Amino acid sequence: MPSANDPSERPAAPANAGARRRQGLVIVNTGDGKGKTTAALGVLFRAWGRDFNVRMFQFIKHSTANFGEHRAAKKIGLPIESLGDGFTWLSKDMDETTALAVAQWERCREAIVRGDEDIIVLDEFTYAMHYGWIEVSEVIETLRRRPEQVHVIITGRSAPQELIDYADLVTEMKLVKHPYEDQGIKAQPGIEF
Amino acid sequence: MPSANDPSERPAAPANAGARRRQGLVIVNTGDGKGKTTAALGVLFRAWGRDFNVRMFQFIKHSTANFGEHRAAKKIGLPIESLGDGFTWLSKDMDETTALAVAQWERCREAIVRGDEDIIVLDEFTYAMHYGWIEVSEVIETLRRRPEQVHVIITGRSAPQELIDYADLVTEMKLVKHPYEDQGIKAQPGIEF
Repeated sequence: MPSANDPSERPAAPANAGARRRQGLVIVNTGDGKGKTTAALGVLFRAWGRDFNVRMFQFIKHSTANFGEHRAAKKIGLPIESLGDGFTWLSKDMDETTALAVAQWERCREAIVRGDEDIIVLDEFTYAMHYGWIEVSEVIETLRRRPEQVHVIITGRSAPQELIDYADLVTEMKLVKHPYEDQGIKAQPGIEF
Repeated sequence: MPSANDPSERPAAPANAGARRRQGLVIVNTGDGKGKTTAALGVLFRAWGRDFNVRMFQFIKHSTANFGEHRAAKKIGLPIESLGDGFTWLSKDMDETTALAVAQWERCREAIVRGDEDIIVLDEFTYAMHYGWIEVSEVIETLRRRPEQVHVIITGRSAPQELIDYADLVTEMKLVKHPYEDQGIKAQPGIEF
């Protein structure tokens, strides 16, 4: 923990910052707007700057995904584990999709309860709950059992209300204006993926 | 640009993806919620993974700031240039604050128009416009003059309406639930700064 005299502390520290207890938060980035996964990536990058142990599990992205985030993560040795099948609304084989999500959840559950990482991101995990592949109550039960210093970040649209009720910090990324819908501009590499 | 046969392309590419034209976007992350700066950081990290040239200018954070993002950026050689004075609502010397913002804006303007970078982030720049330190019309004029492939991301609360009107992609980060306000939990290193 940085000392109170560290100038880097000043702007973010509340006026009454004294003993800052490490307290693991459950954070949810939801909503229809951009920035849910990207903000989680930003947290991992920032925390990596402080030599925290961080880890991202991706639920939807295919195990062969090699987007900007995967390339960047590989360069610095930050683990991003994708075990989706590239599920889209056109996905034909929902049994396989469900099985992959459940298997990925088992790995997450183990990591969350073990507590070796400071921050664990479950990327696009809300869909697994929203579509009923995984029970929300089971997720909350696992979050309750985690060591108290572990932060867990869950991203995706349509976060279930029970999860929102349980979470500490919830942000809704709200779409105000979108170039792809409004102007027919294609997704841009580096920005979007 | 990745080829259409690159498997990493598939999930994000729209069905009709053919020639993907590089088109610089003006992106605004605003609202009272978390994740405005963090999502911009995530974009820089992702784009760095694709070997893009990226650069962040910070307006409010002190030039000596050494938060998680500065440490992470230093480790990988990603330029973050802070030239604020750690301005807070308690700032006594507003003339100095204004002068610093104007000087920082001059540097941004040069970089935006020159176009050496693929992505330029102006972090917490909305405040400089909101408080009238810098004219919004001057900012839009500069954005208009940039080379067309340059993406510019502007973050901060209270984005001026003219900027929103001009921007391509606008996201409002909306606070749904906040642990510091609701439960009196202090800002957590790695997560918040």
